[in-house]
Amino acid sequence: MKKYQPGNIVDAAVLSTGDEVLTGDVVDSNAAFMSKELTLLGVCVQQKRTVGDDLEMIMRTISDLSNSHRILVVSGGMGATLDDLTVKAASLVSGRPLIENGIVREHLTAIEIKRQINLDHIRERQCLYPEGAKILANSIGIAPGFYMKINRADCYFLPGVPKEMRNMFLQEVLGDLKKNFQFDDTRESMRFFLFGIGESQAQGRLLRELPSELLNPFKLGFRADSPFVEVKLGLTGSADPEHIEKTRSALSECFKDYIFSHSQPLNVELVELLRQKQLSLVLAESCTGGRIASLMTEVPGASEAFKCGLVTYSNQSKEMFLGVKKKCLDRFGAVSREVAESMARGILETGTGDMAIAVSGIAGPGGGTTEKPVGTVFIAFGSKKNLETRKLIFPFGRTYFQKLASYTAIDLLRRKILGLRTNIPYYFDDLSKTNFS
Amino acid sequence: MKKYQPGNIVDAAVLSTGDEVLTGDVVDSNAAFMSKELTLLGVCVQQKRTVGDDLEMIMRTISDLSNSHRILVVSGGMGATLDDLTVKAASLVSGRPLIENGIVREHLTAIEIKRQINLDHIRERQCLYPEGAKILANSIGIAPGFYMKINRADCYFLPGVPKEMRNMFLQEVLGDLKKNFQFDDTRESMRFFLFGIGESQAQGRLLRELPSELLNPFKLGFRADSPFVEVKLGLTGSADPEHIEKTRSALSECFKDYIFSHSQPLNVELVELLRQKQLSLVLAESCTGGRIASLMTEVPGASEAFKCGLVTYSNQSKEMFLGVKKKCLDRFGAVSREVAESMARGILETGTGDMAIAVSGIAGPGGGTTEKPVGTVFIAFGSKKNLETRKLIFPFGRTYFQKLASYTAIDLLRRKILGLRTNIPYYFDDLSKTNFS
Repeated sequence: MKKYQPGNIVDAAVLSTGDEVLTGDVVDSNAAFMSKELTLLGVCVQQKRTVGDDLEMIMRTISDLSNSHRILVVSGGMGATLDDLTVKAASLVSGRPLIENGIVREHLTAIEIKRQINLDHIRERQCLYPEGAKILANSIGIAPGFYMKINRADCYFLPGVPKEMRNMFLQEVLGDLKKNFQFDDTRESMRFFLFGIGESQAQGRLLRELPSELLNPFKLGFRADSPFVEVKLGLTGSADPEHIEKTRSALSECFKDYIFSHSQPLNVELVELLRQKQLSLVLAESCTGGRIASLMTEVPGASEAFKCGLVTYSNQSKEMFLGVKKKCLDRFGAVSREVAESMARGILETGTGDMAIAVSGIAGPGGGTTEKPVGTVFIAFGSKKNLETRKLIFPFGRTYFQKLASYTAIDLLRRKILGLRTNIPYYFDDLSKTNFS
Repeated sequence: MKKYQPGNIVDAAVLSTGDEVLTGDVVDSNAAFMSKELTLLGVCVQQKRTVGDDLEMIMRTISDLSNSHRILVVSGGMGATLDDLTVKAASLVSGRPLIENGIVREHLTAIEIKRQINLDHIRERQCLYPEGAKILANSIGIAPGFYMKINRADCYFLPGVPKEMRNMFLQEVLGDLKKNFQFDDTRESMRFFLFGIGESQAQGRLLRELPSELLNPFKLGFRADSPFVEVKLGLTGSADPEHIEKTRSALSECFKDYIFSHSQPLNVELVELLRQKQLSLVLAESCTGGRIASLMTEVPGASEAFKCGLVTYSNQSKEMFLGVKKKCLDRFGAVSREVAESMARGILETGTGDMAIAVSGIAGPGGGTTEKPVGTVFIAFGSKKNLETRKLIFPFGRTYFQKLASYTAIDLLRRKILGLRTNIPYYFDDLSKTNFS
């Protein structure tokens, strides 16, 4: 195996086999894992394929991919049952016959002793591997993997069970790849997580505001995971550190108001910020119905920062737990600046926390009026001494409304704590992308 | 487009494009969805591929797949940003130039009016589609899809945003395929939604308990969407109504304790049940952190049944809002049968609702002890006069613990209201499949 020189792009393909992944009964998390690991290593993954338990299709695909890529990683079909066809396919494509492999035989015997089981029924089939294949140890399962060169490619064959595949990839494949290929480890990438701006708007802004020479040796990528947008820049050639820094600060300037992190989700940012500042959060939610509390409590260790959240859906509960005045509810309506503020003051008055968020709005589909259409929401945020309320309209369906109102509330409090402006315009032009989840 | 005869196998390939799916930043749920739907329809999906935002690679793959399959479904790369290359690739492979499409132009204008936004910055690029392509409407997003014949294949190009893709597939593609191809008419005749039993356990039980002749003219399918399992039986031939009824009641008997619906999610079931019985629900959540409230309030019209939920994460808030005694907290600990019961009694005492759920547990990763390991949870449920508490252990990681505890609480209250036994054993044997999400 020759050592490739830096500058050479090492390209790879990933192949998953198995009827269950092909037909979609199982989401193919193996392929995602392998591509991610290879990409992190510096390998350029060019394609992923999935085929079923179909000998001819597996053979055709291995043959095709091993001719067109330098690395091929295959998962699935390594067991001893009749629909495990990958080993046979590798043997047929490479022209190397299946022979009994001594290392595998020993491995099976060791398992029998350790687990006190008998593997006679699979021994004969399970021990057959292509002649000359290098066995990859499976320290947690029965079927070992193997490595062999086929056509242009270094081919790694791994089991389909996710846990075993991952384990083998990390313990056996990664080190081998690092030894056999030399990767350019200077690649640097930058990431910006944005909230409050849509994908196409973010892109328009970037192309308008950034001199194109600053983007030059980078590969630019946008990913919308609504309501968030991730902007990624990966270095594709060489650039001096000064130039990289220039690009980084130009991007920071371009998206200034909308960047909330370079590494982690918005809810985690708020929990960490509260922890750092030793502040505690309390919530009074109406239309968001417990979503803000859920987003806080999904962060491990949230209890340091999050104390309690009241989901006061009925007017009675707004009065009882938050001390919102009936007069106030009658006069302004439950969805009003006054009630949102009163909810926030109410929860702060209990002395259970320093900072509060209160939300009242109309999630729909019913409940809208001309004056306050479906999608109207009032968000109160801040401390007893410094409370602010914003009115926003998100006329985008119940589920997305609830999600958007929750994240906007989190963002507003984050901004307030950091001393950033809280009157920024929020643009969500790619709303359609977000209704899932 | 010619109508293929039954008996002919209609084979298909599925292609996902996009750097984010290729590099594994996103697990490719689109491909799973499309394969599953095609398979259900009777199409034989032979392979799935994924390539990045790389024009040449997309072209090569479309060309290859459209030569070797009768149906090709492509997702991703339909937007107006620079890394959206699928439309261009389709144009180049088919030799049909990109021209401005009037239908798309009208669609964009309609969105501008409806959402009161301006799409000038994307109009020019977004309106270009291959000449002669048939537009597939996108009723919830910006970028429409399109159909065209390339080489041997009927090719459908869909957006990459999962919600839009699914919507378009169901509304535009499915009907088209049914029209153009003749599939074995597999009518779906019964569905069972199960909670509290794992997929493989459900499958084992069915094969053990059901006489095989009852399954005979049906195609049996299991789908795990953890913690739920869906069992589907589709009629593949003809059978008399009496036989169908016999099968239905045998299945009902087999899964008796675990069936919660034939049509809708568990949270919707509880909200409807409460409405029907004119009961109102109040919550006191600790470890589930607002998830039960969120599940209730995601159902439109929930306010008829759901009144309020207190997320009392700190001990102070358990005392203040629920009247849990400090002595009780000190003596038994916040995670205890006594505290869960006291939380439920506390919220019921406020008179805000008739039925209550209270949950206290250890979501982890920290906080476990030998006596009460991570995953321990106490769920109190019922009315003032008839309150019950169950202890369960779900040692499965924070996120899944919270999900499982929430749904179990909902199921327990549902069972109590319906007079079903509340001491059923819950099995979740397929946990490995569920930790994502």
